Amino acid sequence: MSEPTVLKVRPQEGEYAWTFGGAPPIARIRPGTVLDLYTEDCFGGRVRSEKDLVSRVCAFPFLNPQTGPFHIEGAEPGDTVAVHFVSVEPARDWAASTTVPLFGALTSTHATASLQEPLPERVWMWQLDRERRTCRFSAHDSDFAVDLPMDPMHGTVGVAPAGLEVRSALVPDAHGGNMDTPEMRAGVTCFLGVNVDGALLSLGDGHARQGEGETCGVAVECAMNTVVIVELLKGVTTPWPRLESDTHIISTGSARPLEDAFRIAQADLVDWLHRDYGLSRLDAYQFVTQTAESPLANVCDANYTCVARLRKEWLPTGTAHRDLHRRLRASARLLT
Amino acid sequence: MSEPTVLKVRPQEGEYAWTFGGAPPIARIRPGTVLDLYTEDCFGGRVRSEKDLVSRVCAFPFLNPQTGPFHIEGAEPGDTVAVHFVSVEPARDWAASTTVPLFGALTSTHATASLQEPLPERVWMWQLDRERRTCRFSAHDSDFAVDLPMDPMHGTVGVAPAGLEVRSALVPDAHGGNMDTPEMRAGVTCFLGVNVDGALLSLGDGHARQGEGETCGVAVECAMNTVVIVELLKGVTTPWPRLESDTHIISTGSARPLEDAFRIAQADLVDWLHRDYGLSRLDAYQFVTQTAESPLANVCDANYTCVARLRKEWLPTGTAHRDLHRRLRASARLLT
Amino acid sequence: MSEPTVLKVRPQEGEYAWTFGGAPPIARIRPGTVLDLYTEDCFGGRVRSEKDLVSRVCAFPFLNPQTGPFHIEGAEPGDTVAVHFVSVEPARDWAASTTVPLFGALTSTHATASLQEPLPERVWMWQLDRERRTCRFSAHDSDFAVDLPMDPMHGTVGVAPAGLEVRSALVPDAHGGNMDTPEMRAGVTCFLGVNVDGALLSLGDGHARQGEGETCGVAVECAMNTVVIVELLKGVTTPWPRLESDTHIISTGSARPLEDAFRIAQADLVDWLHRDYGLSRLDAYQFVTQTAESPLANVCDANYTCVARLRKEWLPTGTAHRDLHRRLRASARLLT
Amino acid sequence: MSEPTVLKVRPQEGEYAWTFGGAPPIARIRPGTVLDLYTEDCFGGRVRSEKDLVSRVCAFPFLNPQTGPFHIEGAEPGDTVAVHFVSVEPARDWAASTTVPLFGALTSTHATASLQEPLPERVWMWQLDRERRTCRFSAHDSDFAVDLPMDPMHGTVGVAPAGLEVRSALVPDAHGGNMDTPEMRAGVTCFLGVNVDGALLSLGDGHARQGEGETCGVAVECAMNTVVIVELLKGVTTPWPRLESDTHIISTGSARPLEDAFRIAQADLVDWLHRDYGLSRLDAYQFVTQTAESPLANVCDANYTCVARLRKEWLPTGTAHRDLHRRLRASARLLT
Repeated sequence: MSEPTVLKVRPQEGEYAWTFGGAPPIARIRPGTVLDLYTEDCFGGRVRSEKDLVSRVCAFPFLNPQTGPFHIEGAEPGDTVAVHFVSVEPARDWAASTTVPLFGALTSTHATASLQEPLPERVWMWQLDRERRTCRFSAHDSDFAVDLPMDPMHGTVGVAPAGLEVRSALVPDAHGGNMDTPEMRAGVTCFLGVNVDGALLSLGDGHARQGEGETCGVAVECAMNTVVIVELLKGVTTPWPRLESDTHIISTGSARPLEDAFRIAQADLVDWLHRDYGLSRLDAYQFVTQTAESPLANVCDANYTCVARLRKEWLPTGTAHRDLHRRLRASARLLT
Repeated sequence: MSEPTVLKVRPQEGEYAWTFGGAPPIARIRPGTVLDLYTEDCFGGRVRSEKDLVSRVCAFPFLNPQTGPFHIEGAEPGDTVAVHFVSVEPARDWAASTTVPLFGALTSTHATASLQEPLPERVWMWQLDRERRTCRFSAHDSDFAVDLPMDPMHGTVGVAPAGLEVRSALVPDAHGGNMDTPEMRAGVTCFLGVNVDGALLSLGDGHARQGEGETCGVAVECAMNTVVIVELLKGVTTPWPRLESDTHIISTGSARPLEDAFRIAQADLVDWLHRDYGLSRLDAYQFVTQTAESPLANVCDANYTCVARLRKEWLPTGTAHRDLHRRLRASARLLT
Repeated sequence: MSEPTVLKVRPQEGEYAWTFGGAPPIARIRPGTVLDLYTEDCFGGRVRSEKDLVSRVCAFPFLNPQTGPFHIEGAEPGDTVAVHFVSVEPARDWAASTTVPLFGALTSTHATASLQEPLPERVWMWQLDRERRTCRFSAHDSDFAVDLPMDPMHGTVGVAPAGLEVRSALVPDAHGGNMDTPEMRAGVTCFLGVNVDGALLSLGDGHARQGEGETCGVAVECAMNTVVIVELLKGVTTPWPRLESDTHIISTGSARPLEDAFRIAQADLVDWLHRDYGLSRLDAYQFVTQTAESPLANVCDANYTCVARLRKEWLPTGTAHRDLHRRLRASARLLT
Repeated sequence: MSEPTVLKVRPQEGEYAWTFGGAPPIARIRPGTVLDLYTEDCFGGRVRSEKDLVSRVCAFPFLNPQTGPFHIEGAEPGDTVAVHFVSVEPARDWAASTTVPLFGALTSTHATASLQEPLPERVWMWQLDRERRTCRFSAHDSDFAVDLPMDPMHGTVGVAPAGLEVRSALVPDAHGGNMDTPEMRAGVTCFLGVNVDGALLSLGDGHARQGEGETCGVAVECAMNTVVIVELLKGVTTPWPRLESDTHIISTGSARPLEDAFRIAQADLVDWLHRDYGLSRLDAYQFVTQTAESPLANVCDANYTCVARLRKEWLPTGTAHRDLHRRLRASARLLT
């Protein structure tokens, strides 16, 4: 066994991508490459105090900077890229969250249009204690503060979309993108169907933590130092992003209305049980009905994202994605 | 301290209610009463083998039989009824699940109308091992079988609705009803706003277990022996059903599309933190965004139900609902 | 041929119904009866000046008073009631419209919950010129005024719902109710499936005119003098309310999200073409796709309502509902 | 007055665009240019008989070929492009419509996922009589045939989207695109906000006619010879596509769920009345509520499209878009 290739990427300002598809690759990598990446926060690092209102310091569409894209050699439509998260570590000892006018679940928006006044724009600065693994919330209007567990994750990971499209890094869809699920943490493998030659993988939008649904539209936004191993499954299709952890297989769906995101994720679990675990579709439908865990990911982005999880211990004999998660997990242990 | 009044109810056929509101009370009880109830399964006990297709053995609207309703003395609009689940125990060593034509999340329905053929109608009989606390799934079309943890719960608990309405026991809404959330298990207290004098509480639709979202529309349906303590909070309003466990405060919302159910539940958490825990609304919005757990309850019923949970350990100092959950929990321990 | 029975009803305060189902019939009528009715406006006549804010002068659920219900002799589940609108005439020379806090399409609501402030509450009084058939809009904040054509209609017409339910007069669903479609004008026949013995027909919520979608939630609300002929089609089922005019057959659907209301109405047209006009379902799907007119009715009520219309001149040979519309139209001409 | 520049474009196979944004311009034109265009049908002309199933003869994403894009000199973000439809004439004496597996309003789709079988795939060939201005529908499964009025229109017209995106020609959104509204006919002017330098206008997807909602997802698809005049309004923003006819001002919204498309279009009408006609927002809300015509455009595409129309004769004094529609209408008369 040979040493893996490690590519370290620390982008300078002006070197980020703002879309999935449409941006030229910053590097060509072979399957098996370890990427040691810095990702900037969703604000491009511009929200640094309570005075830095997003509407003043950021300019649409320059939100959610992506580190990448990476051209994966040999990746073709009909294949699947696997991204194993070895580690996701906050790069600073602070993070920021905000309200954004006409964005979020508990406000009218440009799509759910109303004639009401927008909510006030407000910034919350969060202190991170990377040793104790906590994030400190401090209320503005009372003296409450509390340390919450850090649970670092990436809001965005994706490839170039199908259909000749280029999508904003703010959008989640079948190509991945801004799914904003807390499941995208160290220790999991994310599987993404390839739509264009080289796949054009990128990631960003680190969160020190977030709730399920990302209610106000903005998590505990944080620059990250992240290590992933990138692999390629030739001849395996993956219509919607899937994840695998040591304990669960996980499907995702991104759509509006939210019930369609649910339908996509649950139907994908049914298909997964059928293809890789040998259940008939109707048996799989029954099994999923009684066993799925269905936490929301985001209910604020251009598409909403649902996650559907099954415990591996309950599944029939079978292996998902050629047992790649187990092998990547082993490789990851060698790295750390 | 006096012994609590215990009322044991074992309804005969013909003594169930099929609606929230509209049915005469089967008993008047005082706050503090312990109800020791039998609830029939959603099929009225008529699906007993794989040959018992719902379309043959059941007749709409005679689904989801309710044990009750109970008139709670002193309950008036503007008050809140508390139902503490002391125990929820399967009454039989089997349970049933089915597909139902044009019902469920992964099929067209009477509302999400299509011109496609309905899915096949199929029954799965589940074996329950009440000692080992397991439910056995057996596939139809392969020889796979697996024992899953039993996690008994009630799909329906509710009071008469507001606005002079009578709603089918199949419907979840602001009055509770068919919310189908796995959170409704032993050890939790459910809070329901009172809409009519006496509240008219009933419950039913026991599930030996279910997944989040109840994908095919039917859980592991089971008759139950259930003990609850019923209490009354005078002068406390509860716009949407809330739950409290030892570890979480929990809001619910039921609506279509599913994002509206999410909005209701999350906005209710914001209001709860504001009213009972002293956070401003915007601080609460930020706090909920980073801490909410948002599992789906059902995405198949007449309204879809979302749950939103917060860990109590992270909350500011405060008490919900006059600390009633803690007191009922203590009372329950004396009963068992 | 005998003279039709004419029943004149001028309800006193306290004699209105506020629900579909659940209210005792105010009269028993035979099929063929002519009802000469007064209907109060949706506010119960309480909004009479710009100072009469709904939140002050009205009390939920006492909105949308219904004249009725009428028990139609011989009507049983599985039959269809036909209501032919002979005339719909404003009973006063003024009408009122308002904003209502957290109600309407361009505001957050109790279901589409947000943390924003509600819109201001405002009343617009409209002057009706019954000779010139116009309604005068006068702007509040500028000196603009314009006379618009009067197009009187009923927002609500319905029967008792199925499934043992009682629904607020504010709700549209399969039983009819608060559909708020401008199609419900003089000259049309409305067909409603019967769910309970006697059907229990009622109507109300007159509008001097409204736009399609009833955007702010409140039309030009007006008391009406309305004459209808009520007929009964034995053994004809009607799953969702249908209408027939001299020129169109018209289906309706009421649901959330709005696309489900569309699906219901369009699928009903497909079924109608199949059952009464002999097209196969797929041919009907194609035909409807190229010919349907699909104006919105309401996008503000508890369910949203879509209408789907086809021009009769383009249809295959066939007759809808035993040619009853044509016969009622002739009967109506004899009355006036 | 000088002769207008006329640019005639008859694309060869391989010269069509399949996206909005992302395709290089085929020509640079000055404001005021007359474009005399051929547009191919949505199938690229490949469905020519009942045997030509879309799934066999077409390959995603090569659907909805666009003639263009055209770089409009001087167009910058913050401006508005006006496209006046002088004539839209079927280029052949036949047209085609089809069912497409898992596409359309009355079937499950990739987003509204179900486990049901797709509908059968079927082609209907339509005969066009360009002199009599009729389209002949012939049923497959019975001998019914009928001539319907021809009402030629373009399903797609749009510019490059904002936010660095490239969208499939199958998608309608704020940039226009596949709105599929019958309003896009000869005699109207379409206003589109500019997002990138040169705007990059293209159009295609001619329909000999379609119903409102385009229920099965496919209209009477037809190649067109179309003449438009392209103009530029400097310094005028247009957030969502608007249209103007001799009789109406018309807003559009494209989103999911369908109620959001409604909200966008209605809120845009309110803004329009406020900006160009001097009504306050609340007066405009009331006025729109009582006067809007709200026909559906499509309920099948990646976003659904609603139209909202107001009769000009009822409006306050004012002019929309610097009276450009009236002037273009006059210019058009000189051309024909």
